[in-house]
Amino acid sequence: MKNLVGAALLGQSGGPTSVINASAAGVFLEALKQENITEVYGAIHGIKGILNEDFYDIKQEDVEELMLLKNTPSSAIGSVRYKMKDPKKDDSEYVRLLEVFKKYNIRYFFYNGGNDSMDTCNKISKFFKKSEYACNVIGVPKTIDNDLNATDHSPGYASAAKYVATTLMELYHDATVYDTKMITIVEVMGRNAGWLTAAAALAQMKNQGPDLIYLPEIPFDLEDFFVQVHKVLDKKGKVIVAVSEGIKTEDGKYIPEKYGELKTDAFGHAQLGGTAQVLANEVANRIDAKVRAIEFSLLQRSAAHLASKVDVEEAFKSGVKAVKAAVAGTTDKMVGFKRVSSNPYKIKYVMLPLRLAANTEQKVPLEWILPDGKGMTQEYIDYALPLIQGESKAKLVDGLPRFAQLKKVRVVKK
Amino acid sequence: MKNLVGAALLGQSGGPTSVINASAAGVFLEALKQENITEVYGAIHGIKGILNEDFYDIKQEDVEELMLLKNTPSSAIGSVRYKMKDPKKDDSEYVRLLEVFKKYNIRYFFYNGGNDSMDTCNKISKFFKKSEYACNVIGVPKTIDNDLNATDHSPGYASAAKYVATTLMELYHDATVYDTKMITIVEVMGRNAGWLTAAAALAQMKNQGPDLIYLPEIPFDLEDFFVQVHKVLDKKGKVIVAVSEGIKTEDGKYIPEKYGELKTDAFGHAQLGGTAQVLANEVANRIDAKVRAIEFSLLQRSAAHLASKVDVEEAFKSGVKAVKAAVAGTTDKMVGFKRVSSNPYKIKYVMLPLRLAANTEQKVPLEWILPDGKGMTQEYIDYALPLIQGESKAKLVDGLPRFAQLKKVRVVKK
Repeated sequence: MKNLVGAALLGQSGGPTSVINASAAGVFLEALKQENITEVYGAIHGIKGILNEDFYDIKQEDVEELMLLKNTPSSAIGSVRYKMKDPKKDDSEYVRLLEVFKKYNIRYFFYNGGNDSMDTCNKISKFFKKSEYACNVIGVPKTIDNDLNATDHSPGYASAAKYVATTLMELYHDATVYDTKMITIVEVMGRNAGWLTAAAALAQMKNQGPDLIYLPEIPFDLEDFFVQVHKVLDKKGKVIVAVSEGIKTEDGKYIPEKYGELKTDAFGHAQLGGTAQVLANEVANRIDAKVRAIEFSLLQRSAAHLASKVDVEEAFKSGVKAVKAAVAGTTDKMVGFKRVSSNPYKIKYVMLPLRLAANTEQKVPLEWILPDGKGMTQEYIDYALPLIQGESKAKLVDGLPRFAQLKKVRVVKK
Repeated sequence: MKNLVGAALLGQSGGPTSVINASAAGVFLEALKQENITEVYGAIHGIKGILNEDFYDIKQEDVEELMLLKNTPSSAIGSVRYKMKDPKKDDSEYVRLLEVFKKYNIRYFFYNGGNDSMDTCNKISKFFKKSEYACNVIGVPKTIDNDLNATDHSPGYASAAKYVATTLMELYHDATVYDTKMITIVEVMGRNAGWLTAAAALAQMKNQGPDLIYLPEIPFDLEDFFVQVHKVLDKKGKVIVAVSEGIKTEDGKYIPEKYGELKTDAFGHAQLGGTAQVLANEVANRIDAKVRAIEFSLLQRSAAHLASKVDVEEAFKSGVKAVKAAVAGTTDKMVGFKRVSSNPYKIKYVMLPLRLAANTEQKVPLEWILPDGKGMTQEYIDYALPLIQGESKAKLVDGLPRFAQLKKVRVVKK
């Protein structure tokens, strides 16, 4: 709806990335400029913050500090993993959200997250429409997993991919330095889609990457894995393997489920080893070599010092475009990217129906994955390489990054 | 001895660092300029390469490519962990080394490594002297552990410290993003000295670091650790801990030895969990919160993209100074740093007797360590902060670092 006058609210949701705050900077800075937007709020811990009427007042922040968000990793206003109920079964949370939106006259809602979050955003959007509450709802994509549907790629992926490729190149130099037999198994995030693990192929392209790459799109066969590792070991004396945390055996089991020891802690929580560690144990029992497991863990999604400039700028612009579109009357959409060309790299920002992105997963095309863990085809390289270009990072103070330090003034509850 | 004419040989030894190749660049480029130096060799895998007469001919390399070594991580000519025998008990290896040195007329020997390597270097130096073989022997320091004796600090430490501080700042933003209870335990290298873990205090100084820091210099008490973790958790809801891999309990046992499950693989190698993982398991059994272990592993010593400029320049100059000193007649010494002042930062390069650095460990002064895991005193900050200043890294090609690619032409065996 056009000409809505009221507050704008941004929520950050799901696992953080290096650039989710860049999108926040885009939303906040653009919202502060818009005449129709009377207040700019940040929901503290996403949906939970809305349910609790817990907001930061972004008008209290210095614009210079908001600019620094562009290069500050993670989710500055707090994130959340919260799956809302199906409104058809229980709409109490939606009724509560509507109450809060009305109370604070929130007419612009931006939700920054992955496919779960777009599902949330989609449900809220539909509920508001049904309730005839005028509010323009726009999803802003982010995920290091790159598994959001209908968009060429998502902010957050490129910086994590750049981290994976760069770090694997550095590891290559380290893990091949002795004249003894060594096997290094590196675990990369991505529970269902192998996009991030595929970035290992960018290091391979420089002949300074892993010998073997395993994505969750292809069922994992331990015996065949031993064969491939042996082949490389016999030839080179060293093996570097990049595995997705999400690889599964033919029967649909994750590696720690299938081969690890399931332990539970004193509180009944399952304690599963990591994929790389469990594989390393299996390899150590089968092959006589020094075996080491390395997990990129949270480092791969928070390494803002190694962010891709393309990614930071696209994340920022996604936020700006979301606000501009909403003010122009757009609702029920997610900002997406359509690739015009890879060389030279050119994308168009498009507004996609939220339902297209909600809760679906875009996996790596099977035809881009080489057999026997050999890596990726040129199609993948052509797709990914333009995304990791350039550098954009926080300036240094005392040799350390100067991240944004928000005042975080809470909005007084009405 | 002055006016020696003959070949120069460099060996790289021990665990790699981000800047060991910067020292190699210094040695090689300076040696190539010296008239008295007839050939420039790189020993392939350190001492092993010398015993096997296995050398690279550095004169075959392009100077521009050797310059790129400054920003290429790890040990370009191969490293080794090899403890030579005590020459008093068995001098056969030393006799062999002497034979090789004579055969190739090697009159300048540079060995780049930590305290084990300086011990090797010292023994070789003394054996040559005893054998009346004229060869100027100079040690070039390197270690991320910073435990070399008699020098203010060692190349390699500062870049690893910068990695630890920067990455912990980024992790701080990631690990505090949800409104749920979370405990993150991060493991930093350093088997006996806590210098590298101490660098966590640089992130603390920015109020974006770990809450608790544990160095191996202070015996570790698990019960007290629970108390400290609980205190922080009650106050903040999140706890970030930096622990040295080398922390030991009062009875001198490493954490995995004391609390881990000792397993052996099919080949009889011990498989011990990491310190952080074992601690995380203990915490998970005691405290009801999400607990995560993160190991910086090889990443902390190979992250050339995050190297300190001060470190890269000092590593390079150490190599240059070693060659200049050797050609001027100096032998049986290690290049060391003497700090003139911290603010402004100023050091003097000094030539230290090799025996001072050999096989001794310089630990973190106990009076610099705060009690109860609280971190470090201002003395440590004043010491470490000047070291991590500035950036120096490989230029990017395709968005990825362009590391040195040596031709690696082998010297024909005589």
